[in-house]
Amino acid sequence: MKKELDKITPLEKDFPRWYTDVVKNGNLIAYGPTKGTLIFKPNSYGIWELIQENLNKIFKEKGVQNVYLPLLIPESLFALEKEHVEGFNPELATVTHVGNRELSEKLYIRPTSEVLFADFFKNSIESYNDLPLIFNQWANVLRWEKTTNPFLRSREFLWQEGHTSHADPLEARKFTRSMINTYSKFLKNYLAIPTIVGKKTPHEKFAGACSTYTIEAMMKDGKALQAGTSHYLAQNFSKPYKITFKNKENKEEFVYQTSWGVTTRLIGAIIMTHGDNRGIIIPPRVAPIQVDILELFAKKSPRVSEVAAKLQSELGRKYRVRLDSSDKNPGYKAANSEIQGVPLRIEVGPRDLENDMVTIVRRDQVETKILVKLDQVKTQVGQLLDQIHDDLYAAAKQRLDEKTIYVYNYDDFKTNIEKQNFVIAPFCCSEQAEEDIKAETGATTRCIPKILDKPLKNAKCIYKHCDSETNRYVVFAKAY
Amino acid sequence: MKKELDKITPLEKDFPRWYTDVVKNGNLIAYGPTKGTLIFKPNSYGIWELIQENLNKIFKEKGVQNVYLPLLIPESLFALEKEHVEGFNPELATVTHVGNRELSEKLYIRPTSEVLFADFFKNSIESYNDLPLIFNQWANVLRWEKTTNPFLRSREFLWQEGHTSHADPLEARKFTRSMINTYSKFLKNYLAIPTIVGKKTPHEKFAGACSTYTIEAMMKDGKALQAGTSHYLAQNFSKPYKITFKNKENKEEFVYQTSWGVTTRLIGAIIMTHGDNRGIIIPPRVAPIQVDILELFAKKSPRVSEVAAKLQSELGRKYRVRLDSSDKNPGYKAANSEIQGVPLRIEVGPRDLENDMVTIVRRDQVETKILVKLDQVKTQVGQLLDQIHDDLYAAAKQRLDEKTIYVYNYDDFKTNIEKQNFVIAPFCCSEQAEEDIKAETGATTRCIPKILDKPLKNAKCIYKHCDSETNRYVVFAKAY
Repeated sequence: MKKELDKITPLEKDFPRWYTDVVKNGNLIAYGPTKGTLIFKPNSYGIWELIQENLNKIFKEKGVQNVYLPLLIPESLFALEKEHVEGFNPELATVTHVGNRELSEKLYIRPTSEVLFADFFKNSIESYNDLPLIFNQWANVLRWEKTTNPFLRSREFLWQEGHTSHADPLEARKFTRSMINTYSKFLKNYLAIPTIVGKKTPHEKFAGACSTYTIEAMMKDGKALQAGTSHYLAQNFSKPYKITFKNKENKEEFVYQTSWGVTTRLIGAIIMTHGDNRGIIIPPRVAPIQVDILELFAKKSPRVSEVAAKLQSELGRKYRVRLDSSDKNPGYKAANSEIQGVPLRIEVGPRDLENDMVTIVRRDQVETKILVKLDQVKTQVGQLLDQIHDDLYAAAKQRLDEKTIYVYNYDDFKTNIEKQNFVIAPFCCSEQAEEDIKAETGATTRCIPKILDKPLKNAKCIYKHCDSETNRYVVFAKAY
Repeated sequence: MKKELDKITPLEKDFPRWYTDVVKNGNLIAYGPTKGTLIFKPNSYGIWELIQENLNKIFKEKGVQNVYLPLLIPESLFALEKEHVEGFNPELATVTHVGNRELSEKLYIRPTSEVLFADFFKNSIESYNDLPLIFNQWANVLRWEKTTNPFLRSREFLWQEGHTSHADPLEARKFTRSMINTYSKFLKNYLAIPTIVGKKTPHEKFAGACSTYTIEAMMKDGKALQAGTSHYLAQNFSKPYKITFKNKENKEEFVYQTSWGVTTRLIGAIIMTHGDNRGIIIPPRVAPIQVDILELFAKKSPRVSEVAAKLQSELGRKYRVRLDSSDKNPGYKAANSEIQGVPLRIEVGPRDLENDMVTIVRRDQVETKILVKLDQVKTQVGQLLDQIHDDLYAAAKQRLDEKTIYVYNYDDFKTNIEKQNFVIAPFCCSEQAEEDIKAETGATTRCIPKILDKPLKNAKCIYKHCDSETNRYVVFAKAY
């Protein structure tokens, strides 16, 4: 590997450059040979594997069954749901040839798999007894985006996409909402990321959905990142794709559907929520390496390697541990662990060992050296990993709370958007107003949150040219 | 789900139809909308997830790091290794357009990723200190095969592909061989499938490899299935792709490489190694459901549901358990469990419960009912699952041994190939002889095995038109 720990631009100075420097230097990505494609290196793919492992456990409790559907969608199959086609058509990578032979029908690389699941459901369902069917797949999808950004917007990305069919529209709506809450909890409990849960405005909903729920996270620069979505599709796909079931009265009825997903952009969310000027900080529960053990000055005392190996074996039973026993200098080893975002490092050196101690350093508080007795290391590591998770979450939550501002007139709105805050305002939700506001301020509607403590009644819409009254708050922000 | 348990054609009568019936009825596959593509339903995708989970553990011990590389290969990148290009060109699905726009360069959907890894290695390696690099990815690949067969040969399949770079050719060769042995052990210990390990003849090796090692399994019809391969690539890719490192003498040298993989065809191997006229039999260690608990006549006694729920919760802590508490009839429930290949089922019924007992049935011995005291169930389940694994392996091994025949003349060769045996014979390994034999008998060379107990010395080549002498045995068989 190219060994220099390249300098990382300070995030206060240039946030986008900071981000690019972090992803390139943290053993996270390399660029693929096609523009806008990524190589997920071990440190980022490892995070994704842990996201998969933990979400799979949660999905299982919700009765989700994993399946795998094909990559390619025949043009004729894709064409049936009009709004969906219009939404995705310009971004579709299209297979026209095999070898030198032209195919009789174009094949699209899936940008999402609603239509493939529609075809599958159609052939799997006979009666209400078969429902609900709750499927999920982990897959790669392609969307030929014009501008790309590692993890956040790349032409190929990895995700899970869940697809369900129900006999009852209320059950389907309930499932849609329960899944967005599942995602919100997952981000809190595993990625230490707080989110605002809400519904997209009609203008921002998924192409083909009846309604879209979203979780919105705030990055360190104040911009919003849509971190997961759950769609109630109603019968928008079941009608054109003829997915029917016999109901209890033995009558044919179209099924009610949902779909929901999170993607590898969660890795970008981790970086921009927790990272600092030394690079990424990975929340402990999804860190591929939770503890780096560094041998320091091992040549000066044979005990260094002995103790390091013993710690590796003992901690390795419970945690994801890596040992650096190379003869590189201590400064390099520490910087290498930091830039890869490993939550804890244990420095094993001759001087500490004289007192039967080692030094533990938290990635999120690198200035503090924690001296720990050897027989206390195991307990301390467990506690520290939990503490890091909690502290990362608390810091992100505090920032989100402090930078989320209620406004009731357009001037305050503009001022706060300029400060890169989340702005909550009464809004009429007209498409024209959304477009005008975006053109003027760069802000988009993120969601209509459920706000219980500040009920609105007949408030004036925030938009300057709008005279309507509304009971609805909407979250606005600049967004990734 | 379509609920009828369709009849399965007896395997003695029509093996290919038996296979198709088994895959369609075992909750294993549905056909995708593009010819030659598959939907992996929960029962087959579940097997694949367990293969992944267990192989990942084994890989980790070998120092393998998981990564993910892009799906698309630019034409210019693919073109550099000539033999590789010729091998794959006719099968390449080619992206030429995005939306209505023609791309400036064709993009191939990966049929395998040697060239993508080549590009990645090139940018990752500076000196011998960086080596070896041992990567693996779990991915979908496409090869536009003319004839397709579920799991065995489909246009899109799932696999893992490992790719390594080494400073030392001997180390790389050793790694190639160690990986084929790893696969062989994995098939034995997890899939209960015995294999013959050997080297491919030059004619059958991977396009671009210096040498290819293979594991060959024998299906119930006597045909061979190549179940995993490991290639020593030497410098065949590192030279055209300019993957160099500075060696200890500080001179630029090309790296030495390997690649190795197993695919979802392993699911086909499971079916055709262990299956019977009731459908698939899944080896316990990769069975998505290891134990089906069936409530029988639950309305006659409330204890049925109580005991079934208690067993589910107790066994569920250690095993993958499913409860069928529906009011379908006992015969249907049993057949449904059998056709999905669940290794064990526990029938909980009022009559057995009067004696505090339940009935356990092994999927591989459905005629035998095992009456077990309630307090013995947990112990028995563990023992029976291990016993099923061992018995499945022993039966497959016995068949492989009995149907592997040494021959020393061409007439015996032909007779035994007609009987669908594996034939081991002295062979010169000329390409012409291989092609003639294939045209005349349908058999191909499977591998050159290491045979220690029957040394050959200057034996006459088996092929009728060949006069050369050889020290080499070669395994021939008809193959999938």
